[in-house]
Amino acid sequence: MDIDIIKPLVKPSKSKIVLVVMDGLGGLPRESDNCTELEAAHTPNLDRLAKKGICGLQQPVGPGMTPGSGPGHLGIFGYDPIKYKVGRGVLAALGIGFDLQPGDVAARGNFCTLDEDGAVVDRRAGRISTEKNQELCMLLKNITIPGVEVFVETVKEHRFLLVLRGKNLSGNLIDTDPQEIGKKPFEPQGLSSEAASTAAFVSQFLEQVRTVLAQQHPANMVLLRGFSTRPHWPSMQDAFGLKSAAIAGYPMYKGVSKLVGMDILETGNTINDEFTTLEKHWNEYDFFYLHVKKTDSAGEDGDFDRKVSVIEETDRELPRLLNLNPDVIMVTGDHSTPSVMKAHSWHPVPVLLSSKLCRPDKVDQFGERACLSGGLGNRFAAVDLMPLALAHAKRLEKYGA
Amino acid sequence: MDIDIIKPLVKPSKSKIVLVVMDGLGGLPRESDNCTELEAAHTPNLDRLAKKGICGLQQPVGPGMTPGSGPGHLGIFGYDPIKYKVGRGVLAALGIGFDLQPGDVAARGNFCTLDEDGAVVDRRAGRISTEKNQELCMLLKNITIPGVEVFVETVKEHRFLLVLRGKNLSGNLIDTDPQEIGKKPFEPQGLSSEAASTAAFVSQFLEQVRTVLAQQHPANMVLLRGFSTRPHWPSMQDAFGLKSAAIAGYPMYKGVSKLVGMDILETGNTINDEFTTLEKHWNEYDFFYLHVKKTDSAGEDGDFDRKVSVIEETDRELPRLLNLNPDVIMVTGDHSTPSVMKAHSWHPVPVLLSSKLCRPDKVDQFGERACLSGGLGNRFAAVDLMPLALAHAKRLEKYGA
Repeated sequence: MDIDIIKPLVKPSKSKIVLVVMDGLGGLPRESDNCTELEAAHTPNLDRLAKKGICGLQQPVGPGMTPGSGPGHLGIFGYDPIKYKVGRGVLAALGIGFDLQPGDVAARGNFCTLDEDGAVVDRRAGRISTEKNQELCMLLKNITIPGVEVFVETVKEHRFLLVLRGKNLSGNLIDTDPQEIGKKPFEPQGLSSEAASTAAFVSQFLEQVRTVLAQQHPANMVLLRGFSTRPHWPSMQDAFGLKSAAIAGYPMYKGVSKLVGMDILETGNTINDEFTTLEKHWNEYDFFYLHVKKTDSAGEDGDFDRKVSVIEETDRELPRLLNLNPDVIMVTGDHSTPSVMKAHSWHPVPVLLSSKLCRPDKVDQFGERACLSGGLGNRFAAVDLMPLALAHAKRLEKYGA
Repeated sequence: MDIDIIKPLVKPSKSKIVLVVMDGLGGLPRESDNCTELEAAHTPNLDRLAKKGICGLQQPVGPGMTPGSGPGHLGIFGYDPIKYKVGRGVLAALGIGFDLQPGDVAARGNFCTLDEDGAVVDRRAGRISTEKNQELCMLLKNITIPGVEVFVETVKEHRFLLVLRGKNLSGNLIDTDPQEIGKKPFEPQGLSSEAASTAAFVSQFLEQVRTVLAQQHPANMVLLRGFSTRPHWPSMQDAFGLKSAAIAGYPMYKGVSKLVGMDILETGNTINDEFTTLEKHWNEYDFFYLHVKKTDSAGEDGDFDRKVSVIEETDRELPRLLNLNPDVIMVTGDHSTPSVMKAHSWHPVPVLLSSKLCRPDKVDQFGERACLSGGLGNRFAAVDLMPLALAHAKRLEKYGA
């Protein structure tokens, strides 16, 4: 449901909502016992919440669509990721914790290989190492352009971040990446008249890059795409009347939380630390987002057992949350990361919503197959979750008389 | 599904569809036996229909959204309540059975208390009694304005209805209600140039109100909001090819039925009377909407047992409907009104659809948890119901060749 429909219904309340996101929670069965990670895990606390509450399986973006971390989170925060788009440049900035200022233009860069005629031979320069990338970025950091500040930051392997900071910049530019071998990179070009000066700055940057990298091999040039500025969206406070805080250790998740106006709480590295942070700030916020990263990392590594043990570790911390007596608890993931696939996937993600006002369903265990028959439904849009949480927290007025 | 998509597929037929709406049907479990009202009720006829037919749980407006009676009904009539909006003034008119004419402008009024400086002290004038309201409305009824007819009608407690009737009026006005204590009411103001003359009429009305109520306490002024005119929508005949009739005792439901072009059949006060009315007019219409009000009233009163008994009373009348041999029967509610909440709620509403052409599911009992696994699905949009009813009544052509 669109934020514009929900927003006028929001009413003040002292109720509290907690969203626990186990990154990449959804899985696929392993061969030995045909259980997914979540099904194999011993999770007495989650199972109890599932039994008392209402369950289902949510689709973060759309059918068959594998979400990146940004869109995966936006959906469960109540922002339809198809409507609330984040440019590739901004996502790159969020991913490395670069503090984008209003008006900054960010772009995703690739180191690439051009042949003697200037045509692209390899769009990723043989996927150079991150160390090599750092070395090259040191060279690019020396580039200066009159009229703008230039930031160049390593992301990973062949990928880097370019940020221009100055007055009247625009992200409305074409990509210079031709997306094809054998073609020359495109000249920077604005898609609107306001973008002309930004395009000129980018041209100057690329001219200097060409000189600086001339003797490098294989990374003798760069391609740029996804020019974008930090979007201006309604904050969680504006949209849903929720004073919101994020408890997350990794830059990407802090960044996405900032985009929707959450405060970022300082926290330690472990799940235990995160629950301590929750307890410490309990009285200060209406809404808490607590992010567990290592379910996803284990899934990406194809380490089924480690993913199981991170889920179990999270389950063991849950009584601390229950002791705080929140009005609504939601537990889900931003996407699935089945260990057997070693990657993000499109499979819908288990959700549980627990509150005194739930109409219970028949689900008495938190797992993919159990959630199939849950009252929240199956393959439902992730953006449905926030209005449901607000309703169960008695934070929405009636629609019409 | 949008009416514009369905409308071209409609074909003529002699088949008959009956929609029984038990107002506020959906519930929540009571503590003693963990049963909802519908689950606790003894409903052999509904259970038989559920077993032969297809069941599910519908969401009248959207996820987490608690419907008012107007939007709740529009959805099951096949009109998406997000698209087919009714102004607050029109809803107030419908609610008390005021016969709005095309071109009339209606507004919801509150009696309120202003301080000596004219700032709002109490937006509801201490929720004066309905009797006091009637007394004050008698005073306001004496107001005359050259160029328009003025109608003032008591709604309930501090609420009343204002209707202006005349030429070239517009409902495109701002509210005068500042929605905040300590602020002065806003001056009437048109949001478009056509609305300027209407705003002037409203100003004249308010000036006179100020004088008339000057010595009253606490209700010494009024606030107006939701200026609106009766919407012009496709009728059930236009949209779905259904000559339609409403069997409902209360003004609000007659009013909503009129908005979609139904004929309103005269009926008595009991459920028994309503089924008699149905029998009497059986040969005259394609579609009947039969409204049972007292499930909702019992829910609002928090009277679980009374809600159960109204459901059982409705169940006992059902054989009379079955004897008429309709092609499609639908039974549902316009929203949930759990007795334990004493209010409308967002919880999805049980539905059954019975016809010779149903593909049966495994549901053999009409109740919230049973319907969870029904063939119609869970948390599906209420607007899906009307096309499904038309299809089962063989009233829709193939889409495409």
